[in-house]
Amino acid sequence: MTIEREKAAAEAWFKGLRDRLCAAFETLEDRYAGPDAAEQAPGRFTFAPWQREGGGGGVMGLMKGRVFEKVGVNVSTVMGEFAPQFAGQIPGAAEDPRFWATGISLVAHPRNPHVPPAHMNTRHIRTTKSWFGGGADLNPIYAVEADTTDFHAALEGACAGLDEGAYARFKQWADEYFFIPHRGEPRGVGGIFYDYLEADQEADLERHFAFTRAVGEAFLDVYPRLVARHMDRAWTAEERQHQLVRRGRYVEFNLLYDRGTQFGLKTGGNPEAILMSLPPVVAWP
Amino acid sequence: MTIEREKAAAEAWFKGLRDRLCAAFETLEDRYAGPDAAEQAPGRFTFAPWQREGGGGGVMGLMKGRVFEKVGVNVSTVMGEFAPQFAGQIPGAAEDPRFWATGISLVAHPRNPHVPPAHMNTRHIRTTKSWFGGGADLNPIYAVEADTTDFHAALEGACAGLDEGAYARFKQWADEYFFIPHRGEPRGVGGIFYDYLEADQEADLERHFAFTRAVGEAFLDVYPRLVARHMDRAWTAEERQHQLVRRGRYVEFNLLYDRGTQFGLKTGGNPEAILMSLPPVVAWP
Repeated sequence: MTIEREKAAAEAWFKGLRDRLCAAFETLEDRYAGPDAAEQAPGRFTFAPWQREGGGGGVMGLMKGRVFEKVGVNVSTVMGEFAPQFAGQIPGAAEDPRFWATGISLVAHPRNPHVPPAHMNTRHIRTTKSWFGGGADLNPIYAVEADTTDFHAALEGACAGLDEGAYARFKQWADEYFFIPHRGEPRGVGGIFYDYLEADQEADLERHFAFTRAVGEAFLDVYPRLVARHMDRAWTAEERQHQLVRRGRYVEFNLLYDRGTQFGLKTGGNPEAILMSLPPVVAWP
Repeated sequence: MTIEREKAAAEAWFKGLRDRLCAAFETLEDRYAGPDAAEQAPGRFTFAPWQREGGGGGVMGLMKGRVFEKVGVNVSTVMGEFAPQFAGQIPGAAEDPRFWATGISLVAHPRNPHVPPAHMNTRHIRTTKSWFGGGADLNPIYAVEADTTDFHAALEGACAGLDEGAYARFKQWADEYFFIPHRGEPRGVGGIFYDYLEADQEADLERHFAFTRAVGEAFLDVYPRLVARHMDRAWTAEERQHQLVRRGRYVEFNLLYDRGTQFGLKTGGNPEAILMSLPPVVAWP
């Protein structure tokens, strides 16, 4: 019963966070006063539920607006058995391939090249072991120092509640993870990445669930502020073209290296939900 | 000396084929009489040589024209040593990691959604063993039965010179290879795929080099005909949008599954040359 309550609490958190993120983004759509504001209606999310063949499912939230050219906010709760070739790579699954996982995944591709795209994903996974993982990173087309500082500061604040070294550790992990080897360049200006924060013991679960909530709160606080800061600026055709090219790097990273994407597609996940992360228009000129 | 002559002959063939393909494509650019023909100059290839850090290099041929929104024709001759993690996967490289490889790679993304994109790639590789490999496939946005028939017939003709079962074998291999598992759909209407056609013995080398030349000739014969057949047709904004979405499937295949792309990027190949295969503009709406 306790386990079921813990699972339900995690799932409910992710759904509630989804609702608040979507509301914040719709508010930005309403407040938009930039180029062509009068010719475009404020965007609104549409929500599409889906079922997973092996068990569970999720809801894809998608908005195509005037600030957000494409933003996806997905929640899912899935369960089943890992295929033998994956079970060995997952903590606690070698002994018993059954798993249960719940999480939220967000990728925002703003229309304005001056508004930074961003990603945030947190999850709670249970096999014979149990843990939290996640991350968030900022992917500006044109990096602005104040944005980078504010984004990192928000995540540092979230990490401060965990332990003294957490921010440095998770920032370093993000710098290593969000890197495009074949280009020899980072995919953005970083953020945090963390995984396998144990939740087997009650005290660990409480602490790491609290941290995961803090990451969500930090993202919800800082990202809409960064969007609002730049969304009404004008942009040129050259800046738009540069944006499309930079988005190509994002696609390359996600399809070639991103663990979640590879894992999801190769374990029979919903390709529409997984690939909702891909930008709406991309160029490889 | 014989070995050096054999290598030089293969390399020279690929370069000569490149010249003829580029000339054929430039002729199509000249003959274009479709939408906006008067407002656009006929495209011309530019050629950019590059050196590989580990040895050898190549020439990227790229044209952005009025028929071909983006077409790349690359030749390369590279040599060096396979990294230990790859040597075990390559015939003859476990004993000695040194390799030498030459080849041609072509990907055409026409502007007109009615003109089918296509891919062709043939190569000659030497480790302690020696072989030919390659393939060609057609990726129409709107499949046209006559095009599919003609494309397959040309490749069947090339295979007829090898052995009676070659076409069926290599077509089957293409159907299996050019498939997008997470979408549950083929990436196009197929073609041929072949690999490890031995060239250790003089007679095998002659036969398999002749086959590889026949594949190049077949492609050079049929593909420009298919382009010419449709290039002057008008298209709608809806057809253009559908083209951009279908191109996304091509990107997904190349980055997630294509062996050459994965292999090239993970062995320190030239990312600009390898990713020249990616379409100029793509949509994931």
